[in-house]
Amino acid sequence: MKTASIEFIRPTLSDIKRAQQKVSRYTHVTPILTSESINEISGAKIFFKCENFQKIGAFKMRGATNAILSLHPDNRAKGVATHSSGNHAQAVALAAKLSGIKAFIVMPKNSPEVKQKAVAHYGAEIILCDNTLEARQKALEETVERTGAIFIPPYDDYAVIAGQATVAKELIEEIESLEAIITPVGGGGLLSGTALTTSYLSPNTPVYAGEPANADDAYRSFKSGKLLPVENPNTIADGLKTSLGVRNFEIISELVQDIFVVSEEEIIDAMRLVWERMKIIIEPSSAVAVAAVIKNPDVFAKKQVGLIITGGNVDLSKLPF
Amino acid sequence: MKTASIEFIRPTLSDIKRAQQKVSRYTHVTPILTSESINEISGAKIFFKCENFQKIGAFKMRGATNAILSLHPDNRAKGVATHSSGNHAQAVALAAKLSGIKAFIVMPKNSPEVKQKAVAHYGAEIILCDNTLEARQKALEETVERTGAIFIPPYDDYAVIAGQATVAKELIEEIESLEAIITPVGGGGLLSGTALTTSYLSPNTPVYAGEPANADDAYRSFKSGKLLPVENPNTIADGLKTSLGVRNFEIISELVQDIFVVSEEEIIDAMRLVWERMKIIIEPSSAVAVAAVIKNPDVFAKKQVGLIITGGNVDLSKLPF
Repeated sequence: MKTASIEFIRPTLSDIKRAQQKVSRYTHVTPILTSESINEISGAKIFFKCENFQKIGAFKMRGATNAILSLHPDNRAKGVATHSSGNHAQAVALAAKLSGIKAFIVMPKNSPEVKQKAVAHYGAEIILCDNTLEARQKALEETVERTGAIFIPPYDDYAVIAGQATVAKELIEEIESLEAIITPVGGGGLLSGTALTTSYLSPNTPVYAGEPANADDAYRSFKSGKLLPVENPNTIADGLKTSLGVRNFEIISELVQDIFVVSEEEIIDAMRLVWERMKIIIEPSSAVAVAAVIKNPDVFAKKQVGLIITGGNVDLSKLPF
Repeated sequence: MKTASIEFIRPTLSDIKRAQQKVSRYTHVTPILTSESINEISGAKIFFKCENFQKIGAFKMRGATNAILSLHPDNRAKGVATHSSGNHAQAVALAAKLSGIKAFIVMPKNSPEVKQKAVAHYGAEIILCDNTLEARQKALEETVERTGAIFIPPYDDYAVIAGQATVAKELIEEIESLEAIITPVGGGGLLSGTALTTSYLSPNTPVYAGEPANADDAYRSFKSGKLLPVENPNTIADGLKTSLGVRNFEIISELVQDIFVVSEEEIIDAMRLVWERMKIIIEPSSAVAVAAVIKNPDVFAKKQVGLIITGGNVDLSKLPF
């Protein structure tokens, strides 16, 4: 199956700079916020890079935009395709719309109606399938076969990684002398991109990740040195249920300092804390990184910490508090 | 009973400029946000002045700060007092703490524990009383008698009004050529301050207000030309249950263009819309102004509208959706 990436090697600093130029056409430079009371609680000085204010409400817009704009115009002509029930679906749909091409999104039948509506609102064609990985892959392959569209992977792709890497680029360029950077980790697109950017622009700043204990494949893979799949993930942080990608794992193994796991209760407490103190809506996946900082004062206290808030897409009818 | 205001006449532009200098010592210049999708829905181009990001999570910090810093040092020595179950309590407590003086806050016994804790966290002495206006006033009078503290009224006071007037000053100075400005109205502190500032700095810009239909005393007073009290207010917008103040009504009668009422359902829908599309937490009182803009396209569509988001203090355990 043809995939989006025209880049076959790990993104260089030049690749990330080019990605920034492309991505800036369709995305916001998101604000960086601070909270005195969360600093007090954590003991750290945290700079929250707020991708919840990004287009489609999540950083995924960057990777999808860079992947689509990196396609040769001939390859782009028949449109793009992906499978996702989450933010990547909306990101590909909107980036395709803004690029003037078609998008075909394979979504599980049971994905929330609000997410299907959002994707349809961007003019994408939705292909419904059963909610198994096999069914999704089969539906995607048939769609690509039928339409000639190019597959835009959600994270295991260098063009996508270079797009996600632009978050850390903006963060490091705005806040000097960060002593730690942390993101959540699911498939590893954001974490690997963040680690790459940091290795180029601020090589002495260690990069960390937070992961739900109930979906701890990145933690286990990182600690064992072998890529292990996620097993029965059951976490409120629905964006982090995916298994780590191959390219992502390679970069993370090499460039990430450590991965911390947090419990469901810690995730919910951190989410509520940010909502109450900062008056911003973050999704549970973002709260995973916040919880990891609060849980590990030996690592983060007294440090200037850059923390990537990944998104703010939450079903308000199903809040955990 | 001695009250805070040393200013016996309606605030002039100079008074508001002096208030800005005082207020800036303890408050943030809050950001102004926009939302493409809410613009699309309303037909207007809305500039949201986000006082939910203000200290204590609401604009009330401005009025309390200006009132306290306007006191003669001799009057300030014995502390300040007020009665409030809401944002004004926290505002007086924090402004007093930052000014290095004592605060005595009369709160109804049934006020949420989280609000009592916040007030206590700022070092204020809490005096609990029954939840009737009479009990609150009696407890306040006894407290003032006992302590010699000066009463800081929540809205019917020129120093408080001048403090709240600084929100519109920042808004008008940052966004040129606003064609309408709208705030919610409860006691009228913010609305009268906004109307004064606008009359000085942008006299051709009409000022509007939104009010819950279930607590419509400002609407009825404005339409009849007589100050009428609120009757059995029953609205989710708990900050707007109070009756309009005397000084506030005078200014509003003269300088406000119109007041629009909205239903409880419209308030909840607008609140949800802002949470979902803007990823920021606003309290129901703020949503009243948003609902009024959406409900009245004949007034607001195609216009540049400044809208004051008053606060973000919401009990997350008791959400209406």
